[in-house]
Amino acid sequence: MSRNTPTTSIARHDAHSIHIREHDLVNELMGHVSFTEMIYLQLTGKRASTLQVKVLDVVLVTLMEHGHTPSSIVARQIYDSTPEAMQSAIAAGILGVGGTFIGTMEGAALVIDQLLADPANMRQTARDIAQSHFDQRKPLPGFGHPFHKPGDPRSPRLFEVARSHGAEGKHIDALQLLSEEVDRVYGKHLTINVTGAVAAVLGEIGIPQKIMRGLAVVSRAAGLVGHIHEEQAKPSARHVWQLVNEHVPYVKES
Amino acid sequence: MSRNTPTTSIARHDAHSIHIREHDLVNELMGHVSFTEMIYLQLTGKRASTLQVKVLDVVLVTLMEHGHTPSSIVARQIYDSTPEAMQSAIAAGILGVGGTFIGTMEGAALVIDQLLADPANMRQTARDIAQSHFDQRKPLPGFGHPFHKPGDPRSPRLFEVARSHGAEGKHIDALQLLSEEVDRVYGKHLTINVTGAVAAVLGEIGIPQKIMRGLAVVSRAAGLVGHIHEEQAKPSARHVWQLVNEHVPYVKES
Amino acid sequence: MSRNTPTTSIARHDAHSIHIREHDLVNELMGHVSFTEMIYLQLTGKRASTLQVKVLDVVLVTLMEHGHTPSSIVARQIYDSTPEAMQSAIAAGILGVGGTFIGTMEGAALVIDQLLADPANMRQTARDIAQSHFDQRKPLPGFGHPFHKPGDPRSPRLFEVARSHGAEGKHIDALQLLSEEVDRVYGKHLTINVTGAVAAVLGEIGIPQKIMRGLAVVSRAAGLVGHIHEEQAKPSARHVWQLVNEHVPYVKES
Amino acid sequence: MSRNTPTTSIARHDAHSIHIREHDLVNELMGHVSFTEMIYLQLTGKRASTLQVKVLDVVLVTLMEHGHTPSSIVARQIYDSTPEAMQSAIAAGILGVGGTFIGTMEGAALVIDQLLADPANMRQTARDIAQSHFDQRKPLPGFGHPFHKPGDPRSPRLFEVARSHGAEGKHIDALQLLSEEVDRVYGKHLTINVTGAVAAVLGEIGIPQKIMRGLAVVSRAAGLVGHIHEEQAKPSARHVWQLVNEHVPYVKES
Repeated sequence: MSRNTPTTSIARHDAHSIHIREHDLVNELMGHVSFTEMIYLQLTGKRASTLQVKVLDVVLVTLMEHGHTPSSIVARQIYDSTPEAMQSAIAAGILGVGGTFIGTMEGAALVIDQLLADPANMRQTARDIAQSHFDQRKPLPGFGHPFHKPGDPRSPRLFEVARSHGAEGKHIDALQLLSEEVDRVYGKHLTINVTGAVAAVLGEIGIPQKIMRGLAVVSRAAGLVGHIHEEQAKPSARHVWQLVNEHVPYVKES
Repeated sequence: MSRNTPTTSIARHDAHSIHIREHDLVNELMGHVSFTEMIYLQLTGKRASTLQVKVLDVVLVTLMEHGHTPSSIVARQIYDSTPEAMQSAIAAGILGVGGTFIGTMEGAALVIDQLLADPANMRQTARDIAQSHFDQRKPLPGFGHPFHKPGDPRSPRLFEVARSHGAEGKHIDALQLLSEEVDRVYGKHLTINVTGAVAAVLGEIGIPQKIMRGLAVVSRAAGLVGHIHEEQAKPSARHVWQLVNEHVPYVKES
Repeated sequence: MSRNTPTTSIARHDAHSIHIREHDLVNELMGHVSFTEMIYLQLTGKRASTLQVKVLDVVLVTLMEHGHTPSSIVARQIYDSTPEAMQSAIAAGILGVGGTFIGTMEGAALVIDQLLADPANMRQTARDIAQSHFDQRKPLPGFGHPFHKPGDPRSPRLFEVARSHGAEGKHIDALQLLSEEVDRVYGKHLTINVTGAVAAVLGEIGIPQKIMRGLAVVSRAAGLVGHIHEEQAKPSARHVWQLVNEHVPYVKES
Repeated sequence: MSRNTPTTSIARHDAHSIHIREHDLVNELMGHVSFTEMIYLQLTGKRASTLQVKVLDVVLVTLMEHGHTPSSIVARQIYDSTPEAMQSAIAAGILGVGGTFIGTMEGAALVIDQLLADPANMRQTARDIAQSHFDQRKPLPGFGHPFHKPGDPRSPRLFEVARSHGAEGKHIDALQLLSEEVDRVYGKHLTINVTGAVAAVLGEIGIPQKIMRGLAVVSRAAGLVGHIHEEQAKPSARHVWQLVNEHVPYVKES
């Protein structure tokens, strides 16, 4: 094997066994680990600690379901168009887990990493970040919510779950310190929203910023299965199509 | 609300709370239920029993990862082409969870449902199913494996996990009875493969045949996150492209 | 190269030139052929006749745009969620070009092929097909339209364009013969709809049934670009989301 | 209709007719316009001039096919996994038309727009752009090609087709002026690549920068149909899967 041959270290199998990250699937994993533990193992190559399982579970539970969303609307339309290929509906729906809705989680994680990079000057860095976003009227990732006011109820609960299972708290503390500076600079309270809080608690368990989006996608994919199942029993896709016809009318372009 | 207005019963929220299936997300679910328990609740509207959690976990763990697959090859190619939109890579990959690889799970579940529909004549039905597939040389969904011979090691483990947590066993028994008739008709042993076994154990916990594919998609989506994470650290997509250029050469059409 | 090595005959290139189907892209194709001619060449390896170009053009023009459709609703939702990855919006939209909306084209093409397979007994075959669909209350692919009554205006125009450019007319004739039997068996007029007519005229130019769906996808992809462009200037996606919230209300499951 | 109701101006229909951009589909468009003319009309609401048709055609022809690409590899894998849903294969493939391969077209269009914004200082702006990319070792969008050296043969042909049909040439001139400054700053010749040239000629016919990617997607979607058709006749997907198994081996993570 030449030096430059790329390799994989995820899974190997022979006729009698399958090993994932060097663990025997049949004898060590099936029936012994939860889906969440398996996600952590497959992703990182390491067995999850209790803290890591609890935080990953609470994040996956939190992001899974928000009622009607662009993703659920899309999944139901596509399911109605092609019920013979349910995976298409889920795929189409998760294509909506993009910059608008999930980019803020990644942005918040970047800001937290920036704060942690220079612990001695964290408050000054926080002040600068808050001020520069305020001055440029740029949305600050992880802060504010159009609907959950004054506070997003999920954020303190995420912190509580993480801390109660032994999280060190550095990422959470950094985000909360930033929150203090944000409130000072903006002259009003901006809630730490769920995407900011998720970024912090995933940071606590060592999930790198650049793979976080993937976990949000898995969580949302699971939520979409529920929407498709409801669509099977109580279809609404055709009704929504009709709504669009009625409420987004044709007008001749002037 | 007119009689014909479609409705949803999955989630509702106001400024201070989010309820999923009438459970308070922040106070009843976050930190209290696992991702798997949440999947069951959101999908069915009911809290999962221990049996249901254990079976759902083992199924999601089992289907998650198989090393290089069409889905993982695809996810890595798309991630390399558009790293700014990781959800695209996962979406593209799960588009491969279609008829060829997962249709057999649904087919096996249909066969099991058919056997259970007439308990008094189950063995005769099993014999007829085996014989008609044999005569028409049609693959029998849930049986045979190109690689795991003589037996797929995952199938007995799936049955064992389900039975050890109290599964009644009707779906498993039906599939095993069919297996006996299959071996008799074919004159050789055909293993119950993992998709057949998954169909049986999901049937044991009341998951309807027509939503099973969705769970396979979620499991595989999680596996793809691991492949993308590996691609970030040890890229192979460009190498695979080069392999295709070298090994699928151009020839002038005759 | 071993006997079993798969090959490709579509394109080859070196540092100075690109050849597609053995035609020099820069010197023979660019500026010399239309997009439609290029589609035909790349797909079949042959230069299109005038008839083939005209029929392919009229089909691609006909299927491109239908106002609000599941595909356009989906594309706009995804574009709004991830404007940084426009290809996701198009991909999500074309996932709706599945069995419900385009399967009938393929079904109609199969029926036409069936009629043409036994020219001597075509009318009897047509009668049997019509009768069996009528008896089983199965929709007959290519016939009927929920909205365009009594006749789909596109179908006669498709036939006219094909015939006026020299189509032999065997596929069209077969479909029209079936139409006569359909009207007799059903005791009322069922229009040949656009998907039936498209199947017939694509058959006239030698497009195989099993690739027809691909052309419909390309046509619809082009239409979705127009919807995304309109969404950029006159956004409606958020409004549609709001409509769904208002018109598909939450009710507690009984 | 309230002031805030969003509207659409693309298509309307009644039982007897379909109008697209106020043109009667059956009587004015079918059989009268090419697919390319229809794309322009649906996108812009205006009938295309000869120049606009010729440029759009040459762009769609140029971008359609490049032999094995991530998109074609992906489309064939997904088609093999789910032949019952061909649209999935095309959708998965076009998800690869993202930042890595097409972002440069958009970047080049932005640079051209920047040059044209201040005609009096165009050369100085060009020099500054070239210098800043050189200094920061950032790839300059629209310049350089890993394979087509010294020059991408498609670029001069694109300019030639546009100019020979009456393009004013402002966008092309701006890009060529930048090219002069690039060669001076870099001290060697960097070719204007196909994506740069496409950006320039699409600018010539008034296609806005922010919708250009959509046209590339449509062109590539058409190319993928050809690959799927070849896969139907000469399958290579399973062979590629096997190649990946052999050439991206498992190694235990150290």
